[in-house]
Amino acid sequence: MKKNAADEFVQVRKDIDQVDSELVDLIVRRQQLTDKVGTLKAELELPLYVPRREIELIEKIRLSAEQKGISPDLVEDIIRRIMRDSYLSQNKMRSQVVQPQSRKVVIIGGKGQLGSLFVELFNQSGYPVDIIDKGDWPQSDAIIKNASVVMVAVPIRVTNQVIEKLTNLNEHCLLVDITSIKELPLKAMLAAHKGPVIGLHPMFGPGINHLAKQTVVVCQGRGESHSQWFIQQLQTWGASLSFVDAKQHDHLMSIVQVLRHFSTVVYGYHLKEENIDLDKVLELSSPIYRLELIMVGRLFAQDAELYSDIIFSDQQNIPMVKRFLQRMIDLLEILETEDKQKFTNRFEEVSNWFGEHAEKFLHESNQMLAKANDVKR
Amino acid sequence: MKKNAADEFVQVRKDIDQVDSELVDLIVRRQQLTDKVGTLKAELELPLYVPRREIELIEKIRLSAEQKGISPDLVEDIIRRIMRDSYLSQNKMRSQVVQPQSRKVVIIGGKGQLGSLFVELFNQSGYPVDIIDKGDWPQSDAIIKNASVVMVAVPIRVTNQVIEKLTNLNEHCLLVDITSIKELPLKAMLAAHKGPVIGLHPMFGPGINHLAKQTVVVCQGRGESHSQWFIQQLQTWGASLSFVDAKQHDHLMSIVQVLRHFSTVVYGYHLKEENIDLDKVLELSSPIYRLELIMVGRLFAQDAELYSDIIFSDQQNIPMVKRFLQRMIDLLEILETEDKQKFTNRFEEVSNWFGEHAEKFLHESNQMLAKANDVKR
Repeated sequence: MKKNAADEFVQVRKDIDQVDSELVDLIVRRQQLTDKVGTLKAELELPLYVPRREIELIEKIRLSAEQKGISPDLVEDIIRRIMRDSYLSQNKMRSQVVQPQSRKVVIIGGKGQLGSLFVELFNQSGYPVDIIDKGDWPQSDAIIKNASVVMVAVPIRVTNQVIEKLTNLNEHCLLVDITSIKELPLKAMLAAHKGPVIGLHPMFGPGINHLAKQTVVVCQGRGESHSQWFIQQLQTWGASLSFVDAKQHDHLMSIVQVLRHFSTVVYGYHLKEENIDLDKVLELSSPIYRLELIMVGRLFAQDAELYSDIIFSDQQNIPMVKRFLQRMIDLLEILETEDKQKFTNRFEEVSNWFGEHAEKFLHESNQMLAKANDVKR
Repeated sequence: MKKNAADEFVQVRKDIDQVDSELVDLIVRRQQLTDKVGTLKAELELPLYVPRREIELIEKIRLSAEQKGISPDLVEDIIRRIMRDSYLSQNKMRSQVVQPQSRKVVIIGGKGQLGSLFVELFNQSGYPVDIIDKGDWPQSDAIIKNASVVMVAVPIRVTNQVIEKLTNLNEHCLLVDITSIKELPLKAMLAAHKGPVIGLHPMFGPGINHLAKQTVVVCQGRGESHSQWFIQQLQTWGASLSFVDAKQHDHLMSIVQVLRHFSTVVYGYHLKEENIDLDKVLELSSPIYRLELIMVGRLFAQDAELYSDIIFSDQQNIPMVKRFLQRMIDLLEILETEDKQKFTNRFEEVSNWFGEHAEKFLHESNQMLAKANDVKR
């Protein structure tokens, strides 16, 4: 009996390997087909990312999974993972444009991380692109002349200085910046240039190599009709645009960006000063602690100056950070007086304020955590 | 030309749907095969999770992807996602045991979230399981008599009280707790019971329904030879065990657990007091801010008392929280004096301290963030 089971065991494993090989073949075939779709979309001038098609496709495959008795979540996760790569691949091969012939693009700081992404995107789409780098200012007038759009993609600490120099763009030229704060650069652009102006905040890091499904915040400055083609181009690349007032943007970002970065630096500094054994922590960590730790540690693999720039970008953030600190002191006081009931009450007030979002976040993060556990060796 | 492209477009989409349908069929077949493996593993008394087989299988499929010209990361992600469900499915159908006939299991608090998971696991594996709930103390002596293991799975605030009652276990009975702090419960267990003792800290939340690849911290108390069968059973369920000294465990946990929970509560409280527009924040958020926000919000979908219990579990944590606070004040002072260079220096000191880990964390979190973007609608 045991002998037979052992033989069968070996055979079933071989069968699994065979299925896996067929799986790879099928993914290859799917990619060939989606690449074909990419070419046809370009030809038919259709956008790369079509939310409705994506939703329909997912619904269809979920239904099929249910009918065949397997988990719809499983097949949805798999198909979304495959789609991620098809967007990337489609994006690489297409050269889809809105009206490239007549548009010259100039990117100031086009050799930087985010600037070079836009250089690549415009190039792929057939626009003539010029870059202005640090040493190029003497020639800048010639480069900027006849530009349809000038994009400012320089570090936040020099954004305003650069914008102030841009006083002689032609009147139809669109002036755009991609700084992570919006009110001050927008004001500076409107002061320097009389033509169309918009402020962008691309909500992603330099790790991205296509715009499909990426959020880009758009703050309107002036001359919406003249920036329409540019907005369309972003959408054609697949970006999901979010229109918001510059002041509101900066207020929200002071919390999700400035305070978050600041307290992450504090937490990393604390770990260092406590001289925590990182390897041991990782060994013990549950997926959630691991995730929290990697979200802290990732900051420190990045440019110190970039984060300092963001944190120091606006002294108006200081009172908000102080309010945060005061709240921490208040809760610590509750901890010291051992008033657990009071602490629990505070907790529940926050739960009520989060409302339905809390449940949704729990569900979404559980999916992420399962993924984190998948990759564990 | 355009007409033909449009026709072709419709046809290619149909082809994609066909491939997707075949994909579902293939996943169904693979699950049937892995379920078969599960049965055979039980018959052959092999553990559910075999790291070497998993690594070999992944290497094979990565190689196959490379040869066929598609991304090895893509197929690895897919196969790991499928494997997650196979572990779950295999675990549900197997009833694999170490030596169940002779072992009676008693779980105090077996109706709680984590307690009931262990009840289910032991039941599935054929052990006779008894539960002691709040009202069962009058009968507890009869229930505990002849138990091979008594597991304490009650809320942290009553763990010690419960342990103190367990003075008349038989001398071979293994006493185990699953509290998230380890030094005090272990001390209490060693004082109450003269026989074998171990402390566990399962490093996962109640959302889990199998142990495959889940980390469980083990702190040895007394009588290792008598707890061997129990340790083996955990391994057979697929758990990844991490042996650590109780004191070291508590020290590390004071930072990754107590401080982390505490500052998350503060951050949630801050968001509420600032009355941030959550929907607007989500609309604007990059994957990383979204992830950070859901990691905060998820806490507030959970039991306020549970988190208060952990945070209040040990007054010795207060000095550590105060050191954290002081570090925040120090960095805030640098922010106020606008000494960006000093802040950048601090940042770089932390980067150096993280060393290679920072790069690894960046890479790992980028994978997670890509996943977060996949599910965006």
